[in-house]
Amino acid sequence: MSRRDISEFTIRRLSLYLRSLRELREAGTEVVSSRQLADGSGTTPAQVRKDLSLFGSFGKRGRGYQVRELLETLESILGLDRQWRVALVGAGKIGRALLGYADLERRGFRVAAAFDTDPEKIGTSHYGVTVRALEELEETLRAEQVEMGIIATPPAAAQDTATRLVEAGVTGILNFAPVKVDVPPEVTLRGVDVVLELEGLSFALTSDVAGGSRREPGSAAGG
Amino acid sequence: MSRRDISEFTIRRLSLYLRSLRELREAGTEVVSSRQLADGSGTTPAQVRKDLSLFGSFGKRGRGYQVRELLETLESILGLDRQWRVALVGAGKIGRALLGYADLERRGFRVAAAFDTDPEKIGTSHYGVTVRALEELEETLRAEQVEMGIIATPPAAAQDTATRLVEAGVTGILNFAPVKVDVPPEVTLRGVDVVLELEGLSFALTSDVAGGSRREPGSAAGG
Repeated sequence: MSRRDISEFTIRRLSLYLRSLRELREAGTEVVSSRQLADGSGTTPAQVRKDLSLFGSFGKRGRGYQVRELLETLESILGLDRQWRVALVGAGKIGRALLGYADLERRGFRVAAAFDTDPEKIGTSHYGVTVRALEELEETLRAEQVEMGIIATPPAAAQDTATRLVEAGVTGILNFAPVKVDVPPEVTLRGVDVVLELEGLSFALTSDVAGGSRREPGSAAGG
Repeated sequence: MSRRDISEFTIRRLSLYLRSLRELREAGTEVVSSRQLADGSGTTPAQVRKDLSLFGSFGKRGRGYQVRELLETLESILGLDRQWRVALVGAGKIGRALLGYADLERRGFRVAAAFDTDPEKIGTSHYGVTVRALEELEETLRAEQVEMGIIATPPAAAQDTATRLVEAGVTGILNFAPVKVDVPPEVTLRGVDVVLELEGLSFALTSDVAGGSRREPGSAAGG
């Protein structure tokens, strides 16, 4: 089975199962049921069993899963049994908030370098990471063997940043700039967009589609 | 058709079409093809036509869509032809970054109030929003007619914050805390989780599932 065949949703659920398993391990729990994993991630026991079955056979019907072993297996599946080296481009508010986010390193993502174009930011240090001039991007990424990039630039700079990250060998990009960026097919791109999430809430909070919100362009009705 | 039947993915694509349409309007473009909308949002022309057909009939085959009219219709569908009043709980790094994010207000989301429990933060102002004591949450939300809440608290405070927001009348919540929160079914919840996104990249960047990453709990193999 190719990893490309596994949906983004399945992966998200695996991350949520892993989070539950970490909490259970900290609490000293040794065995967990698919029901408990489901409750901890907003899904169903059947979905849990189906997701895990994609990667082999785990647990025994009615006897649950061994917390520690399932946790290690999920970490291995997700590629979290190692540390990833990440570059951050853009040391503005979002970028600095990310640098201060201790969970990143704890979860296996080390920010190995940060970059900005603002002379006032270059040379400053945040949580142990020094902001470098953008000109140093390619050289630094190769020297630090960076594999992932986080784009936290203004929208206008996002595409150029993505292109440079890819040319410097990055194969996974997380884009915080509220704009679409293009990357080659072999590069994996994820986006975090606050406005997009709020628009999703707006849609859900807006009452059901009525006549007034259907409108035919070119017709006078509903204008 | 109920809005509940429309997938989160469709809504995300509508947001992306809307973003393309806004750029086109700013550029003075009057007509757009489904191909152009597809290219601007990483999908196919057929998907664009299918998504839009959920909400009525737009455009004419081979003649494209009127930019201004489709834009206004999408804004109406997404509930963006009005302003939403949003409360922010947690004025730490992420919270303050959100307060400074000018696009929120421009896109129809006004942060009407911000809250924290830290005496050093209470009373400070960020981008025109004064941080209040959490004790004032219920009273303020009712007075300001807040409908959406953003949780940017530490994980341990997230569930209590969600419960209080819901009790104060909020029906849409965006959760930045890296923990699952429960809300009643009538409340819409979205989550933004940086670690989850990075774990998705980690999965994609990890080579295809091989024998070594399949492991049967209880067996000695693969240990």
